[in-house]
Amino acid sequence: MIEQPSRHRVVIVGGGFGGLYAAKVLGRAPVDVTLVDKRNFHLFQPLLYQIATGTLSPAQISSPLRSILSRYRNTQVLMEHAIDLDATAQHVVTPNRCIPYDTLIVATGVHHHYFGNEEWQQTAPGLKTVEDALEMRRRIFMAFEMAEKEPDPEKRKAMLTFVVVGGGPTGVELAGAIAELAFKTLKDDFRNIDIQQTQVLLLEGLDRVLPPYAADLSEKTARSLQRLGVTIRTQTRVIHVDESGVTVQQGDRTEPIPSRTVLWAAGVKASRMGKVLAERTGAALDRVGRVMVDSDLSVPGHPNIFVVGDLAHFAHQGENPLPGVAPVATQEGKYVAQKITAQLAGKTVAPFRYREVGSLAVIGQNAAVVDLGFVKFSGPLAWFIWIFAHIYYLIEFDNKMVVLLQWGWNYFTRQRGARLITGSETIVSEPPIAEVEQPEVARDRVSVNAS
Amino acid sequence: MIEQPSRHRVVIVGGGFGGLYAAKVLGRAPVDVTLVDKRNFHLFQPLLYQIATGTLSPAQISSPLRSILSRYRNTQVLMEHAIDLDATAQHVVTPNRCIPYDTLIVATGVHHHYFGNEEWQQTAPGLKTVEDALEMRRRIFMAFEMAEKEPDPEKRKAMLTFVVVGGGPTGVELAGAIAELAFKTLKDDFRNIDIQQTQVLLLEGLDRVLPPYAADLSEKTARSLQRLGVTIRTQTRVIHVDESGVTVQQGDRTEPIPSRTVLWAAGVKASRMGKVLAERTGAALDRVGRVMVDSDLSVPGHPNIFVVGDLAHFAHQGENPLPGVAPVATQEGKYVAQKITAQLAGKTVAPFRYREVGSLAVIGQNAAVVDLGFVKFSGPLAWFIWIFAHIYYLIEFDNKMVVLLQWGWNYFTRQRGARLITGSETIVSEPPIAEVEQPEVARDRVSVNAS
Repeated sequence: MIEQPSRHRVVIVGGGFGGLYAAKVLGRAPVDVTLVDKRNFHLFQPLLYQIATGTLSPAQISSPLRSILSRYRNTQVLMEHAIDLDATAQHVVTPNRCIPYDTLIVATGVHHHYFGNEEWQQTAPGLKTVEDALEMRRRIFMAFEMAEKEPDPEKRKAMLTFVVVGGGPTGVELAGAIAELAFKTLKDDFRNIDIQQTQVLLLEGLDRVLPPYAADLSEKTARSLQRLGVTIRTQTRVIHVDESGVTVQQGDRTEPIPSRTVLWAAGVKASRMGKVLAERTGAALDRVGRVMVDSDLSVPGHPNIFVVGDLAHFAHQGENPLPGVAPVATQEGKYVAQKITAQLAGKTVAPFRYREVGSLAVIGQNAAVVDLGFVKFSGPLAWFIWIFAHIYYLIEFDNKMVVLLQWGWNYFTRQRGARLITGSETIVSEPPIAEVEQPEVARDRVSVNAS
Repeated sequence: MIEQPSRHRVVIVGGGFGGLYAAKVLGRAPVDVTLVDKRNFHLFQPLLYQIATGTLSPAQISSPLRSILSRYRNTQVLMEHAIDLDATAQHVVTPNRCIPYDTLIVATGVHHHYFGNEEWQQTAPGLKTVEDALEMRRRIFMAFEMAEKEPDPEKRKAMLTFVVVGGGPTGVELAGAIAELAFKTLKDDFRNIDIQQTQVLLLEGLDRVLPPYAADLSEKTARSLQRLGVTIRTQTRVIHVDESGVTVQQGDRTEPIPSRTVLWAAGVKASRMGKVLAERTGAALDRVGRVMVDSDLSVPGHPNIFVVGDLAHFAHQGENPLPGVAPVATQEGKYVAQKITAQLAGKTVAPFRYREVGSLAVIGQNAAVVDLGFVKFSGPLAWFIWIFAHIYYLIEFDNKMVVLLQWGWNYFTRQRGARLITGSETIVSEPPIAEVEQPEVARDRVSVNAS
């Protein structure tokens, strides 16, 4: 279907950090590259929580894959959903075609994980896609709108209670942003509710927030969050989620927390391609479905199939596997691209080693924590480092200077421009006039004047 | 349910230009104001086409109603859907409550109109809401993605044919923006299609585009559109729309035009509140359902009910009713607010008169037409006037300087950042691996290695 090219064909599945950086390096190599992604854009996932809380718009943290890669004439982008592969015939399968490869790079990442309670997803959305973030945004802003109209104090309290499940970086950033929203941005906007009554709860199963970070940074983070108005509950496991809220367990004690807005930042599991690789290549998977890779990121026994980014379980450096963060994916993608190029030139390449670039999390305006390995700090300086590290990545693709200006604007005004409640569920269908049932409370006062 | 206040209660239904400007003026008056809108934001509708074509993000042309009005302590915003009213008991009805008024301002605008073929809406979406614009954006960018993968030249041609129905300002702006997109922004982004083969057709039933403007501006507009690559067909009526494209009639001749993307910019009809007003007050409606108002914008026989904006048919100035554009709605909203304030102070007020501020339409970069009544011109100067007129309105609410910077950026780079294909239809559900049917073309080559 696609003609046999004379050059080595590399197929990359997934246009996140791992796949995209592999493509950028291979764009200058003597190979033909096909990047397959079911979406037409690269998403800067670390900033998704800023969409969910109304600071940025989706387009401000997304770049069209075609436009990022258009300068590389050896590269084509296919908007297709890879659903299978054949490791013997060497092609990737999509619903519409087979895409032959000489070398394959799989970089399809991870999804949320509800630890076997996938039905919680309806009530407690996670944060992996633009649609997820817009759904969170809709729920957060809708909760305040509903509370403003709710006469029953019990129900109103549940509407003003926001539960964030999971005290990792995403949970910390979400909880901090919601607290800032309620206590700063929206403070003058409502007439019937006392928005200072808003509760933002951050639930973490382990004994501190940001468990992968150093203990003193966890403590600084906790103090910053508390200053913003977030209530932190550690060693607290969520054992049930439904429309009325969450039930938590702390030691032997269980307790219901009524809430209309439960946000999930607790766990991930591998995307489907992990299972496909296991079925088609015999690759081993870890507990959450990530692919156990060799020290060069290839699948054992398949030297021309690589896995990079969150989907890879790289156990050849340190005690734990490398974490699922953007710098790891980026370095892995670049490494594999360089390895492919070197191999074609007949050179050998040392195993992959991740160079630590540090961890960042932002808690709120002027508050962040930075762990660079040799130094850890927090406060406004950490916040500025966080801002510039993110802008650096954003502008590398698409010169998104506008995001910097947007942040600058928000910083000084404390406003958030992206507070739209959108989506099909917000559009009410209109009954024909004759069918309109007037609310009970008013019926006695109504005398319809149907002239 | 809501306690009887001592002050005069004004209820405004609709937070578009008419309702919002009325609220801003009444915010300083000795009255209690309730603004009811089913959405939580004011939308700058004249720029919706820039969302549909990937230049701006929804939040960049939307402002939260609460934040615009939060400084007016006499004003509350209710996110509710007004579905009925009782003119005798004097309250507005929503699914959840009755909202009593002393004076009512109805400003609920208009919808698309398919001239009795409402089933065309599925195939040919219109452009009135943020969701409409995102759906248009999805279809436009998806059409290019599908064409890139389509081997059949007939089908590919239909995918690269964009039909805009209606040669008014919205149709002209949409067609110009799609042509710029195809021939400038996307020109290096595809590998399998010749994007120069893209066809952008603008269909108009009358004998020229922009029929309400002066004839020489129509001609300049047509020439500018043609320079951008738009094919204009006047005196051409659409008689059928379906998945395969449109059928047009020109004189006695009918002709099918295969197209996968048909966009509707042809007609409007009044929103539901027009019919409600007719039923409940006996108001007369015009052909498209707009309310015939008195010279002070009140409903005849109901001096405390006003209709402003696109929903009002104001026939007391000139031969035709005032057009459904933002400046008319804005002036009407302000007038009614001033009239209410004056009446409460015992003063009389002269009938409403619209002060002409001119008409603007943008055709593409550096190309626009301006008709200020006493002077008409086109070209780059008109384009700059268009930019600044729009920025002036945008910053009045929300200081959206970022939009100006975004435009500046796009102007110099010819890029468009908001090219995301989003929405639930773009997310493919994943079949379990065992069920995956491999495409026919490859089946013979596949030997599944299910280890």
